[in-house]
Amino acid sequence: MARVSQQHLDARRRQILDGATRCFARNGFHATSMQDVLREADLSAGAVYRYFSGKEELIAAIVNEVLDTVREAFEDAARQSPPEPPDVLIGQVMERVLGRGFAQGVDGSTQLPRMMVQVWTEILRNEELSALIRTGFEAVVAAWVRVVEAYRAAGLMRADIPAEHVARTMIATAQGFAAQQVLFGAVPVEVVQNGLRGLMSMGEQRPG
Amino acid sequence: MARVSQQHLDARRRQILDGATRCFARNGFHATSMQDVLREADLSAGAVYRYFSGKEELIAAIVNEVLDTVREAFEDAARQSPPEPPDVLIGQVMERVLGRGFAQGVDGSTQLPRMMVQVWTEILRNEELSALIRTGFEAVVAAWVRVVEAYRAAGLMRADIPAEHVARTMIATAQGFAAQQVLFGAVPVEVVQNGLRGLMSMGEQRPG
Repeated sequence: MARVSQQHLDARRRQILDGATRCFARNGFHATSMQDVLREADLSAGAVYRYFSGKEELIAAIVNEVLDTVREAFEDAARQSPPEPPDVLIGQVMERVLGRGFAQGVDGSTQLPRMMVQVWTEILRNEELSALIRTGFEAVVAAWVRVVEAYRAAGLMRADIPAEHVARTMIATAQGFAAQQVLFGAVPVEVVQNGLRGLMSMGEQRPG
Repeated sequence: MARVSQQHLDARRRQILDGATRCFARNGFHATSMQDVLREADLSAGAVYRYFSGKEELIAAIVNEVLDTVREAFEDAARQSPPEPPDVLIGQVMERVLGRGFAQGVDGSTQLPRMMVQVWTEILRNEELSALIRTGFEAVVAAWVRVVEAYRAAGLMRADIPAEHVARTMIATAQGFAAQQVLFGAVPVEVVQNGLRGLMSMGEQRPG
């Protein structure tokens, strides 16, 4: 058997994962068969099963990719010191999540938000996956708590609210905006950035 | 055949929908069989098929209930004049969405957020459902645009940002917070309310 370079192995693995991601993003984990994946990746069963034992292993690999991509997007945005304001940070996260680093659909749009929503559904029935997501989310919350603490130390945010509540709310905004991308097609990132600027301008005032 | 009161028919229909909702919330639309629904609702096939022709009709009925409940929660919160600030409004929406009006799980928690996330996944492969969600969402955005316009008219929010962007961002925050309920268990509503108050306190300031 000819020796195959690591580069070739990696490229082939990538080809399978991208094909599977397109299938899953289109039809969901459960309505997709390995036959669908073979067809989409344009590979033989022998070629695919050399890398993945079956659909469950493919799903697990892709779920891990989705979680890593999202977690890194949040953690990288939170790493700057001093941190940019929330509208800028959330913009950076969304650019990454909607960006070109992930398998593309036929229209060139990223499949990541569609996969995110599917992962959210999948954890309803998968305890292992559920634990994985919780751990990743706690790491993201911890990183964003440090951002909020930096805002407070700089006198940019009132200090009488738990930093974790603000961190969770900022993350929720990004998650909900990602869901809107799935539900309503590509929405420009400036929408959520402008929206945050609007909310941030409300100050402590209360009507009446 | 004995005459059956409308009240009895309605109660029976409710019993089927609640049983199906518990099944779907637990296992998802696709992994749930009609047998599972019969068992959960504790009814015979004859009793259930009198009301619903099959799983697809059950799913459609439940999706419509989920969408109506969420849409009404958003629209009712937006109906007050003058509107309460964002943290109060989002709190009202979340109380409704997490409230007691929907089928309960074994722990007494509402199944609605779990169903919401499933509906988001289901629209990936269902054009009809997708159109239904878009229409409902546009109605919610329109109602919340009026809220933002009221904030601006009262001088509570800067006026140089499209009201629609702020409306979509407020809705995204609620959607993301609902997703967090699914991913991480019951999170108190005050978390997102406090978080919004923190963001609102950031004003126009920029670090550096």
